[in-house]
Amino acid sequence: MNNFIFHNPVKLIFGKGSISKIALEIPQEKRVLLTFGGGSIKNNGVYDQVKDALKSHTCFEFWGIEPNPTVQTIRRAVELLKREKADFVLAVGGGSVLDASKLISAGALYEGDPWDLVLKPSLYKKSIPYGTVITLPATGSEMNRGAVISNSDTKEKFSFYSSFPLFSVLDPETTFTLPPYQKACGLADTFVHIMEQYLTMTDESPLMDRWSESILSTIAEISPSITKGDINYDNMATFMLSATMALNGFTAMGVSQDWATHLIGHELTALEGITHGHTLAIVLPGTMWVMRAEKLGKILQYGKRVWDIEHSDNETAVKMIVAKTEEFFKSLGLKTRLSENGVKESTIQEIVRRFRERDYHLGENKSVDSVKAGEILNFVK
Amino acid sequence: MNNFIFHNPVKLIFGKGSISKIALEIPQEKRVLLTFGGGSIKNNGVYDQVKDALKSHTCFEFWGIEPNPTVQTIRRAVELLKREKADFVLAVGGGSVLDASKLISAGALYEGDPWDLVLKPSLYKKSIPYGTVITLPATGSEMNRGAVISNSDTKEKFSFYSSFPLFSVLDPETTFTLPPYQKACGLADTFVHIMEQYLTMTDESPLMDRWSESILSTIAEISPSITKGDINYDNMATFMLSATMALNGFTAMGVSQDWATHLIGHELTALEGITHGHTLAIVLPGTMWVMRAEKLGKILQYGKRVWDIEHSDNETAVKMIVAKTEEFFKSLGLKTRLSENGVKESTIQEIVRRFRERDYHLGENKSVDSVKAGEILNFVK
Repeated sequence: MNNFIFHNPVKLIFGKGSISKIALEIPQEKRVLLTFGGGSIKNNGVYDQVKDALKSHTCFEFWGIEPNPTVQTIRRAVELLKREKADFVLAVGGGSVLDASKLISAGALYEGDPWDLVLKPSLYKKSIPYGTVITLPATGSEMNRGAVISNSDTKEKFSFYSSFPLFSVLDPETTFTLPPYQKACGLADTFVHIMEQYLTMTDESPLMDRWSESILSTIAEISPSITKGDINYDNMATFMLSATMALNGFTAMGVSQDWATHLIGHELTALEGITHGHTLAIVLPGTMWVMRAEKLGKILQYGKRVWDIEHSDNETAVKMIVAKTEEFFKSLGLKTRLSENGVKESTIQEIVRRFRERDYHLGENKSVDSVKAGEILNFVK
Repeated sequence: MNNFIFHNPVKLIFGKGSISKIALEIPQEKRVLLTFGGGSIKNNGVYDQVKDALKSHTCFEFWGIEPNPTVQTIRRAVELLKREKADFVLAVGGGSVLDASKLISAGALYEGDPWDLVLKPSLYKKSIPYGTVITLPATGSEMNRGAVISNSDTKEKFSFYSSFPLFSVLDPETTFTLPPYQKACGLADTFVHIMEQYLTMTDESPLMDRWSESILSTIAEISPSITKGDINYDNMATFMLSATMALNGFTAMGVSQDWATHLIGHELTALEGITHGHTLAIVLPGTMWVMRAEKLGKILQYGKRVWDIEHSDNETAVKMIVAKTEEFFKSLGLKTRLSENGVKESTIQEIVRRFRERDYHLGENKSVDSVKAGEILNFVK
């Protein structure tokens, strides 16, 4: 096991009816900037619950944070926050609203352009406090310090790390009205978050391995019912809990991590606008196949423990396991090939070019470079 | 899944050589009370590492915290702390030293007798900050708010809850010199901590179930090598991580809990002086058997997933699973029957009397009363 430091102070407030509890978490004297997405929360009752909970607080509303939130939108939110002297941010929505709110909270205490903070992490010092009400299980943003921010001018998409949310409210009932595609992308996102922390070396930590496999097996177990459209509280609660636990550091203690699939996926979002979770479902089978020599032991362990797949010939086993993984993503209703999603050869070439330009060496062994990225994308054409 | 609130802000600093990092975690101006047990840390190098790390801090030393720490000892530590105006406590040792230090840190800000805080939780308001260097994987005290405090005058033993440690340092190398009996008790303690949070109802949370089973399976996997006396860094690291993860709330989200075995075990310690983890190994098979009607589904799931035991007749299956659990504790080198440990009939009667006097109704269904406690103890006679 590798040495590690683990620290996650986020307070999770989980369960039906929990939104009413936010008033106790935000000091009465705070001036609260509420940040929202496109308006679906006005239809499912979440907006009303938040407003009701904060009826004694001074609030300002910022609407219109888009999927794959852009710094262009965030700049406007920071302007509003500074103009109204808000000193607390409450993000209400999916991972995009939460991610944007991390940069908004950081931008509140930064004089320059928020994009500086994304490009140059050392400039980041501090955020104003913020909390979240998450309505879409997927990114895990509700219990980590990370965000992914896009720039619509440059068609770039980068990670940004700030402080943890003070608290996050997870009410599974808020997920009941999610469209099928968003649920599918959330399930894929959760699954691949674990794979990035798990599908690396063997024998680093038997406990972390089992915890990761627990989330993978649980997602596999509940996905058919969720995909069918069942509205089952316990299933949605399990989905929500799994998504949060998949990217809060709980499964990453002392083990290597990969994240090559994510960085390739980010480019597919930046260049083609494909939803984040969907890009991961497309790319992961390619990463597994192309990197199979380095990941062999873990691929076999994953296949056996999560899908009950074994074969005396390793190459055949890997083929079956990669196919099963792709089949799982298909079963969610996702198209898993680039061509099915309208991605052209020129996009593959541009991603390879960007990887070469940035001199990327990704993955647990730093062996995923522009050439490997090209092979991965060609495998999933 | 039940509604829950989860919040665990402890910073874990894990791995070999980590003790040197404590200096950065304790502000330079703090006056630090170091709390220790009986002196084994002077032989294994831990004391020297701590003193070296804190060579620029003002430190005071309190030695002699005993297993099952007593309020009598804690009173003396609080006196020293107040006399020296210490404003930070660093606990260095096993769970007993950590537990005692929780009451010492609380006692620092309380005018009256620390035992008041144990008997009347509402009197507890605040602690001075404290950190820990844990050297014995077992109680999980390094990542929770709980402590168990004894009173040697009244032969009582009760739980106490204060604030979380600011940080805990876990260096697996500090465990290399542990005596076999302490390792055995630590493995049993870890195993039963999970069972208290797991062996209740079925179908509350598939993810929490799997995470619990992960710890049980991992402990089962590494125990033979540890019991044999192998000094293997990765195994001891896994043991240490498992012990911490077994009682930090990570496996308790939204699920029912039991804790009857613990409360019976506490009485065995209070009355007979048997080490905590050992009492749990004695009592648990009794709890499983006597409460088998209420716990049936979960016992069968546990037997199948952790021990690969199945049988078409449920009663036979339960019998096999309980026997396997007792056999596991025996394999650690622990005597699992009261009579083997010199516990007399009068002690059983005294425990039943105390349970009746306190009108205890324990367990996930509040159905473990004095009569059931008697049945449990008679099963493990």
